[in-house]
Amino acid sequence: MPKVVDHDVRREQVAEATWRVIGRDGLDGATLREIAREAGFSTGVIQHYFLDRDDLLAFAAGQIAERAGQGIAQAQSELAPGLVRLRAMMLILVPRDLESARVSALLSFWARSAIDPVHNAIHNQAYDALRRTVRIEVVAAQEAGQIDDRRDPADIADSLIAFGDGLCVRSTLEPTAFPEDRREQLIEGMLIALAPSRRTDS
Amino acid sequence: MPKVVDHDVRREQVAEATWRVIGRDGLDGATLREIAREAGFSTGVIQHYFLDRDDLLAFAAGQIAERAGQGIAQAQSELAPGLVRLRAMMLILVPRDLESARVSALLSFWARSAIDPVHNAIHNQAYDALRRTVRIEVVAAQEAGQIDDRRDPADIADSLIAFGDGLCVRSTLEPTAFPEDRREQLIEGMLIALAPSRRTDS
Repeated sequence: MPKVVDHDVRREQVAEATWRVIGRDGLDGATLREIAREAGFSTGVIQHYFLDRDDLLAFAAGQIAERAGQGIAQAQSELAPGLVRLRAMMLILVPRDLESARVSALLSFWARSAIDPVHNAIHNQAYDALRRTVRIEVVAAQEAGQIDDRRDPADIADSLIAFGDGLCVRSTLEPTAFPEDRREQLIEGMLIALAPSRRTDS
Repeated sequence: MPKVVDHDVRREQVAEATWRVIGRDGLDGATLREIAREAGFSTGVIQHYFLDRDDLLAFAAGQIAERAGQGIAQAQSELAPGLVRLRAMMLILVPRDLESARVSALLSFWARSAIDPVHNAIHNQAYDALRRTVRIEVVAAQEAGQIDDRRDPADIADSLIAFGDGLCVRSTLEPTAFPEDRREQLIEGMLIALAPSRRTDS
């Protein structure tokens, strides 16, 4: 069914163009006209794939979680459970190339989710799943002795996710103070801080 | 000079009203008319105190840092240096009453700072100062043996600030999963994770 595939690909291309426009001009600037121009399509083509601007923005917001989820699924299939996967997941949440359109749109969608129930529902569904997934790896890391097992795995998972979100904020707003190698160093430092205390070695 | 005081108080009242409107309706919804209505003034009064909407929004953004700075200065004058102050600072960045208008406007101002040089400058000036202040307390906590001194204090300070920012995001968007007592518990867990490893005790 090549037509169905084309349809999906086209929608994803439009979502990516939407991220870029939002990253550049904010959510206000993300008009159908501007998104169409960025995607290299006519406004009519965009309207063929989306009901209206709200429908497109909701899809573009959902695709942020979708892409992160794809990266996480790949990490799960390729890497051993526990700390190694956890590190990979953090680097998906705080990607190396923060210039990537996916991250630059994030802050605008968060602000929108704070006041818009539709976007809040999209956001919370994604983060519910993320928090469960990260918790599973924390448990695996605790069982492997890689992370302190005296703390609630849900607390550790949610703290890691909050830390990753905060790093996205800091890196977007203060890119000079939070360059790529420093972000990785801070993530590594956080994972080390969560390691079992040396007392358990003695 | 009671007139000068009144002027400042009035401007702060308008800033608080601006936070409330942004928290409810987003930055788009924060028109001069709506802010005036929220503050209980006429639009003319608002225009007496601010050049235009941009001037008001910039002031309201700066006041977020100003208020946090006042809380931090109070913590510095009342509490012992090191871990106790650091904990107090985290609870100023992630305040108990997250419903407070100050935090609900934060996500919108962050999104704006990502695309608006004026807001980015206001934001970065505030965070530069914050990062320096927190680093000083991390050093004090390290010297007191309360925090692992093998790590760069700037890295620990910036990680704590990113964690606090992320907790503000999580708590605003997922208030059910991040209630007040859990936020404090996660902050405490983070400070414990940064403690010196037990090896130094043996």
